[in-house]
Amino acid sequence: MKTLAMKTLAQSKIVIVGLGLIGGSLARALSRAGCGGQITAVDRDEAQLQQALREGSIAAYALDARSACADADLVVLALPVLSIEAALGEIKPALSEHAIVTDVASVKREVAAAAARVFGKVPPRFVPGHPIAGSERSGYGAALAELFVGRKCILTPFAHTDADALAQVRELWTLCGAEVVDMAVEHHDAVLAATSHLPHLLAFALVDTLSQQGTSAEIFRYAAGGFRDFTRIASSDPTMWRDIFLSNGAATVAVLDRFLDDLKAVRQALLTQDADALFALCQRARESRGQFLEFMQAAAAKQVSQA
Amino acid sequence: MKTLAMKTLAQSKIVIVGLGLIGGSLARALSRAGCGGQITAVDRDEAQLQQALREGSIAAYALDARSACADADLVVLALPVLSIEAALGEIKPALSEHAIVTDVASVKREVAAAAARVFGKVPPRFVPGHPIAGSERSGYGAALAELFVGRKCILTPFAHTDADALAQVRELWTLCGAEVVDMAVEHHDAVLAATSHLPHLLAFALVDTLSQQGTSAEIFRYAAGGFRDFTRIASSDPTMWRDIFLSNGAATVAVLDRFLDDLKAVRQALLTQDADALFALCQRARESRGQFLEFMQAAAAKQVSQA
Repeated sequence: MKTLAMKTLAQSKIVIVGLGLIGGSLARALSRAGCGGQITAVDRDEAQLQQALREGSIAAYALDARSACADADLVVLALPVLSIEAALGEIKPALSEHAIVTDVASVKREVAAAAARVFGKVPPRFVPGHPIAGSERSGYGAALAELFVGRKCILTPFAHTDADALAQVRELWTLCGAEVVDMAVEHHDAVLAATSHLPHLLAFALVDTLSQQGTSAEIFRYAAGGFRDFTRIASSDPTMWRDIFLSNGAATVAVLDRFLDDLKAVRQALLTQDADALFALCQRARESRGQFLEFMQAAAAKQVSQA
Repeated sequence: MKTLAMKTLAQSKIVIVGLGLIGGSLARALSRAGCGGQITAVDRDEAQLQQALREGSIAAYALDARSACADADLVVLALPVLSIEAALGEIKPALSEHAIVTDVASVKREVAAAAARVFGKVPPRFVPGHPIAGSERSGYGAALAELFVGRKCILTPFAHTDADALAQVRELWTLCGAEVVDMAVEHHDAVLAATSHLPHLLAFALVDTLSQQGTSAEIFRYAAGGFRDFTRIASSDPTMWRDIFLSNGAATVAVLDRFLDDLKAVRQALLTQDADALFALCQRARESRGQFLEFMQAAAAKQVSQA
């Protein structure tokens, strides 16, 4: 069953709630794609909103999400996971029946649950989304028009999700240069626990462990490639990551426990000076990197050939 | 007591044993500093040696370390930690009394022990060294003349180390743009276990854990910032890293165990959804990154003012 499309994306008023790294990059990317005149941004930080307005990456702004969403056709909630529920509650009274709502959060089960709590069930025109792009920097000042180019954007629609809403959210991210793929909610959260949430958790924890040693000045002074990369990963926005770890804790612990089992074996190999096991570990990891690079090159080549 | 300096560095025949990433970068850096004509390189890979000769980063090469070292004034062993002992045994009969020997390995206790096994005690003109620079790439093809610029090079001399030998090795690395600092052997190994060996171990182990999941193709496809950085760290040379883990296992396990204790607390915070603990972790790690960046900027500013 296809709900009547009220407007095409090109005719839509787009409201971006949260003009941080992702929301700001979306505004800049859409404005570069010619849609800047359609965008209203909502944020608590008026200075950032004014900067975006001056730059022409948005056409208007508001400090109040509800009023901004009154005549919105497409609302993008670019907020930390655990701010989604309050934002949905805030805009619910203002949303027109045809309005499409999407988000950009890194955990999708919690977002779907939040939508169900606010609306009784996940509305057909609510499309959970997650662009796989980011930076250790945060805020509108760090936003980049090209942040999503060549990156994946995962949408996690439900069986009852409206086909037109899904198509328009897909078009939104395609306009920004992303490759849009659909995935089930639970699967998304498990894959991201492994590829993003656990690596970040390890980086936060390692930087914390080493910083709390009395010798932290020395640790910084002699930081070689390894630790330097970890500190970069660990400098991502704390509120965003707290929310991710709170809402995807179970999946993250599941992959953490597999990792800890493997790490126990590695620790044993260190203690027993098991040269073969240590070489095999380093060799396998290097081969995986090779496969990863091949995969990335193939993906890039595919993209060029489609361009 | 000062041993008579036979020659200054500018008059010395320099032999680099091992023309990989570090040995090759040293040759390129020294040749850029005007010392290319003094360098003989030794490697098993004749094609790499010929390339270095064509490029003028070395003046001669040999496949046999012993003959190359017969008239050497300064020998740099740019080999994995556990290849140092055999190399020292190989060149010992050829070394003149005045020859200075140094190395570049990431673990210094094992290198000192190897020298003591070969020579009865660590020779006065043997100066263990470690430039804190590297790359996930390996081999002469990845060598860079500027690899050591602005980086630390740690020397771990003993009380009986010859002052002239120490001064010349210090001059060697200063010529390459490094900032040379002295440190005790045990202290070096403990600091590097924390800043480099543990981060690399975690990267190798995580890439290995995730690659062995049935879903590794998906892991690669959706690799976000976190995992991507880990694969890069984990693609470093397996032989070099096996040797490091074998020879600095105790110090690495010591810091690994502190990390595992902290990680246990983080795991508990995930399970109990302890928002405050998770936020504090992310916040502390981000602040440490800030301190690290300030430290690096201060170090860079210091270097500019000294230039």
